[in-house]
Amino acid sequence: MRHLAPLVLLALLVQPGLPSARAEEPAALPGWPSERVAGQRALEKALNALPSAERLRRWHDLFCAEPHPAGTAGDARLIAAMAEAFRGMGLETDVHEFFAYMPTFEKAELSVAVGQVLVHLPLREDALPGDPSIAREIPPAFNAYAASGVAAGSVVYANYGTKEDFERLDALKVSCKDKIVIARYGRNYRGFKAKFAEARGAAGLLLYTDPADSGYVRGVPYPEGGFANAASIQRGSIKTLPYPGDPLTPFVEATKDAKRLDPATLALPKIPVQPIGWTAAREILARMRGREVPKGWQGGLPLRYRLDCGEAPVHVRLKVVQPRSIQKTANVIGVVRGATHPDEMVVVGCHLDAWTFGAGDPHAGSIVLYEMARSFAALAKQGKRPARTIMFANWGAEEFGIIGSTEWCEANAQALLGHAVAYVNLDMAAMGPDFRSAAAPALKRVIEGATRDVPQARAPETTVHAAWSKRGEGTVPFGNLGGGSDHVGFYCHLGVPSCSLGGGGSRGVSYHTAYDTLAWYRQVVGEDYEPALMLARVGNVLVSRLANAPLVPYTIQRPFADARVHLEAMFGKAADKEPAAELRTRLDVVRQKAARVEAALDRAVAEGRCAGARLDDVNRQLLSLERAWLHRDGLPGRPWYRSLYAASDPHSGYAAWMLPLLRGAVESKDRARIAAAVGVYMAALDKMEAHLDALDRLSQEE
Amino acid sequence: MRHLAPLVLLALLVQPGLPSARAEEPAALPGWPSERVAGQRALEKALNALPSAERLRRWHDLFCAEPHPAGTAGDARLIAAMAEAFRGMGLETDVHEFFAYMPTFEKAELSVAVGQVLVHLPLREDALPGDPSIAREIPPAFNAYAASGVAAGSVVYANYGTKEDFERLDALKVSCKDKIVIARYGRNYRGFKAKFAEARGAAGLLLYTDPADSGYVRGVPYPEGGFANAASIQRGSIKTLPYPGDPLTPFVEATKDAKRLDPATLALPKIPVQPIGWTAAREILARMRGREVPKGWQGGLPLRYRLDCGEAPVHVRLKVVQPRSIQKTANVIGVVRGATHPDEMVVVGCHLDAWTFGAGDPHAGSIVLYEMARSFAALAKQGKRPARTIMFANWGAEEFGIIGSTEWCEANAQALLGHAVAYVNLDMAAMGPDFRSAAAPALKRVIEGATRDVPQARAPETTVHAAWSKRGEGTVPFGNLGGGSDHVGFYCHLGVPSCSLGGGGSRGVSYHTAYDTLAWYRQVVGEDYEPALMLARVGNVLVSRLANAPLVPYTIQRPFADARVHLEAMFGKAADKEPAAELRTRLDVVRQKAARVEAALDRAVAEGRCAGARLDDVNRQLLSLERAWLHRDGLPGRPWYRSLYAASDPHSGYAAWMLPLLRGAVESKDRARIAAAVGVYMAALDKMEAHLDALDRLSQEE
Repeated sequence: MRHLAPLVLLALLVQPGLPSARAEEPAALPGWPSERVAGQRALEKALNALPSAERLRRWHDLFCAEPHPAGTAGDARLIAAMAEAFRGMGLETDVHEFFAYMPTFEKAELSVAVGQVLVHLPLREDALPGDPSIAREIPPAFNAYAASGVAAGSVVYANYGTKEDFERLDALKVSCKDKIVIARYGRNYRGFKAKFAEARGAAGLLLYTDPADSGYVRGVPYPEGGFANAASIQRGSIKTLPYPGDPLTPFVEATKDAKRLDPATLALPKIPVQPIGWTAAREILARMRGREVPKGWQGGLPLRYRLDCGEAPVHVRLKVVQPRSIQKTANVIGVVRGATHPDEMVVVGCHLDAWTFGAGDPHAGSIVLYEMARSFAALAKQGKRPARTIMFANWGAEEFGIIGSTEWCEANAQALLGHAVAYVNLDMAAMGPDFRSAAAPALKRVIEGATRDVPQARAPETTVHAAWSKRGEGTVPFGNLGGGSDHVGFYCHLGVPSCSLGGGGSRGVSYHTAYDTLAWYRQVVGEDYEPALMLARVGNVLVSRLANAPLVPYTIQRPFADARVHLEAMFGKAADKEPAAELRTRLDVVRQKAARVEAALDRAVAEGRCAGARLDDVNRQLLSLERAWLHRDGLPGRPWYRSLYAASDPHSGYAAWMLPLLRGAVESKDRARIAAAVGVYMAALDKMEAHLDALDRLSQEE
Repeated sequence: MRHLAPLVLLALLVQPGLPSARAEEPAALPGWPSERVAGQRALEKALNALPSAERLRRWHDLFCAEPHPAGTAGDARLIAAMAEAFRGMGLETDVHEFFAYMPTFEKAELSVAVGQVLVHLPLREDALPGDPSIAREIPPAFNAYAASGVAAGSVVYANYGTKEDFERLDALKVSCKDKIVIARYGRNYRGFKAKFAEARGAAGLLLYTDPADSGYVRGVPYPEGGFANAASIQRGSIKTLPYPGDPLTPFVEATKDAKRLDPATLALPKIPVQPIGWTAAREILARMRGREVPKGWQGGLPLRYRLDCGEAPVHVRLKVVQPRSIQKTANVIGVVRGATHPDEMVVVGCHLDAWTFGAGDPHAGSIVLYEMARSFAALAKQGKRPARTIMFANWGAEEFGIIGSTEWCEANAQALLGHAVAYVNLDMAAMGPDFRSAAAPALKRVIEGATRDVPQARAPETTVHAAWSKRGEGTVPFGNLGGGSDHVGFYCHLGVPSCSLGGGGSRGVSYHTAYDTLAWYRQVVGEDYEPALMLARVGNVLVSRLANAPLVPYTIQRPFADARVHLEAMFGKAADKEPAAELRTRLDVVRQKAARVEAALDRAVAEGRCAGARLDDVNRQLLSLERAWLHRDGLPGRPWYRSLYAASDPHSGYAAWMLPLLRGAVESKDRARIAAAVGVYMAALDKMEAHLDALDRLSQEE
């Protein structure tokens, strides 16, 4: 490279796609022994030279060839292909089979009758000549775990079917009893829409995609644009048990011979539930002649929305045949064994099952995972194995209720509790160039650091971090990790600091529809695979640091700082009178200690004063500090959820509840319960402070 | 009534429809000689015993029998019928003819072509079997003063066609040059949509009713409900000259032989403009394939809205044949001559011309006016004539640009300047039971007072005032009177304190459509004519007080208090640094003096210390005080608008501009202009203060 003219050099520096192509100085690596930094940077550079757009595209072709819901033949073929691909890279490969209680989609029918007019409504998308996947095979639409049976009755419209929406219907004296409820997707997890409708005696439930939420009101529909069209149907599970995973084996692995619950004892849906597109919904809604909807309930269809049918009932008949049985499927795990600390683990995962073709959900993440796995495998072949073990996991049966990852966590609970450093989730990761992440506070520093050293997709003159913080107007906007994907077992059940990485900013929605195809993805997200490349590079740097950092790269103080923010969001900035004042003061004290210990540890390790067995002790303490957020009894009514820091919102599903034991107590308005919850958090903080004291001592010793 | 049991008494007190049926004490009459109060109350009671629902209904039948735009045969027949009705009451009746430059609606055609598909689009509403008016005769839709000619081109969508919307198109480099612009109704006066489109070189303009603004997004469409349906077309004028009235005779009456401007010199529209319904609009919008609209521009049709046609032009052809000529029409005035002060006048008006049948616009006001006229005429026959003259005016050709009332004001300018106490406008008054009023500040006290003594429509156990202030959460919410109806000549040109009275709260919109029929009105506003009864009673009390009060019942201090609020709205509450600080201080001083003078005058008259010739002097000073808001030069660029207090918004038309000379200067950001405007207001305040000093002296003399 000598003798190149300056202009050529400059051109090389800003050439798209080169991961190191930035004019800035590399960001600092806090807590790294100074003599190890250059080696780590070289390693990262070598890793990030490997991912390629062409490879990402080939993985995508391989994974999205056919529909593959869990338990189907397509699922089995993909499991085999994924395992073969890992083996081809030279990874230790484990096909972890499990046996879960899952639905089989046999048949559904929907009709609407007014007077003598009988209309049969479509339950699968239209074929599109421009989309080869869809021209070939359109899978019918279902809601997993809907009851089999026939429901018939007149119709009630329930807006988004949230808790508040159903309470509004109650207040307006609109009865759902023996009615077919129709609700639009959005604002909560669809399982809660079904749960609330069933609780009110509904005969059945129709879930539809309204154009105001995902269709022409938001943008041009597919195939001209990327948004939902009149035929698009969002499939999805409606299971709302108080634990994820196999319904019959909470807390334990769903092995072939596991001791199982009796399905009859479970609160699985008891009414038929069916997803539809707005072509079908319009045939029903346009025929309703009852009371007008309240403000905010009008959707985007060209008609006045009504709550009910008034004097002119609209007869809807829904038949769902969806038997449930114990079926086999699997997780596919590829392992790069750690060179010096093989029992310590970093797990990277994305589910493998898909409602249809899965080009976006999940394989916009799987392709990133495979390019990361290929990068680490290639370096391992050159003898550059990471210090800790890295596991690349394709999880089975996520779509039916986060089953594969939950079973694997339950199977490996002791090892994970003791030695898992972090879990990184990639579900649907590469959906656009705008980086985003939801994360446990302990991981926020190392994630931010990784994004400082990777160029932004389609704008390589800047970094991912710069583009991300620009969107956040100066601070990088991390999301709160709640429910909804495969991190739940790691994070909420086992206390392993977890995060999701992803990218947004594309103009479209094909989520859980038959249009979640390669043609859709390449038209809407792009042909260039730049977002996936960006995420593979951020993931490589992040996982390499998690797996190699001599000092486990948690920020110790951030969890206390963030908890303080969550506490304030719960109680407002009101004075000390409120019940959590004691907890707030305690958090401030512990946070100050944590900040001191964090700085002392970083210094001690950087200066080589803490290494070897003592550093191993430090890392053990760091993991224990994080596990101290676990509460042995779990949350009230859902003991599987053990994290005192984060859980899914029990009334909406997707959103996160922070400090959930306290949040639940506050919502109950029961002063005794609030006081008890504060007591639990105070005790946890005592435990954490003991770990901090131990870390303090370890950082001081010479 | 003796011997009635208490329960029966209670039932009588709350019996619907009895105007005096209230448990409260009658409100005080500030400024009335105490010995005159009982007589006035008896008079009001007698007046308000006269209006009846049955009569209101019959007036409505009479006025809405056929379409009657100005200048048509229907218009001439209605003028004759209205004059006959006044004569039948025994009123002095004047058919005031005028000769204005107006359009004749001959023909319009609209088609859209894509490839070989040619679609002719509807330009009149559908017949409705349930609506007898419509089953008979559907008038075609036009925009008055659109240019005749043929426009053809591809299409640009301009949202509401506001100043901001067109500036957004400019910023997005969407050219309107040689295009057919399509814009939705709403947010500004339609004339400005045409003006802005023409200024950008558009070939033609289509104005349509979007379902998001008036249709199914807001409520159930007609005929099931009251809102716009797919066929509804809003007609309307697009004239935007800097003066209302006849385009050829600004400042002077449009007599047969008046000196006229050359039409070729006027800024009347130079492009064809046509109103359409959303059936027609959808045929065009659904074919557009260009750039997507920005946020807030998506309407309620089931399609993605686009700014333009991209690579696939949509060929629209619009032909409008609408010749303009000098045509005769008339105002119809009925007069109750004043007994003691016949030269002092209170004018009550509502226009008579209608775009179609006019059941709402204007005759929801005309029926109120006729029941008021009948009430005062009946009392006059019994010898109970008011002190001042009351004129009941049906204005001609309001819909083409406030022509009849403007010509009448110009014809009678000197008498009105010298002796008009107030103008009360009733255009579209009785559209629902929720009372509302926009008013000059001087009239707010007497309007409020009148509403305290009339029972609320459909809730006679409460007063109009109580229901009105409940909706305003404690204070009665007066609107600011701006442009848009027949008060403009009185208020903005001649400085006569004016107000509009009306009622809202019905679920529907038929404004300027062929569905503005009796059937629509009786279905949507109601069969009971309770809102019209309520307004006739409020109007009777208000006009009786304006015509009989020995002391002209203005509040003297309120204009200064309100001006202070408008000044604050213009500049914020910022410190004294801003240019209007001087004006603010001055307003405060004058307001304090006005409050003192108001109290002193009220006391002096109530106690009989001020009467006869001295009271006449007081009343002359009060009228002069109000006229002191007039500025001889008028506003920059529109000298016809002489009020320094209120004008129409020159960029949107309907909205009011308060303190308009200053507002215009502030918008120009020209410091010298602002300083000059402040100077004009300071000089006007000096003049007002001189009147206040004169009033002060008159209130003191013994």
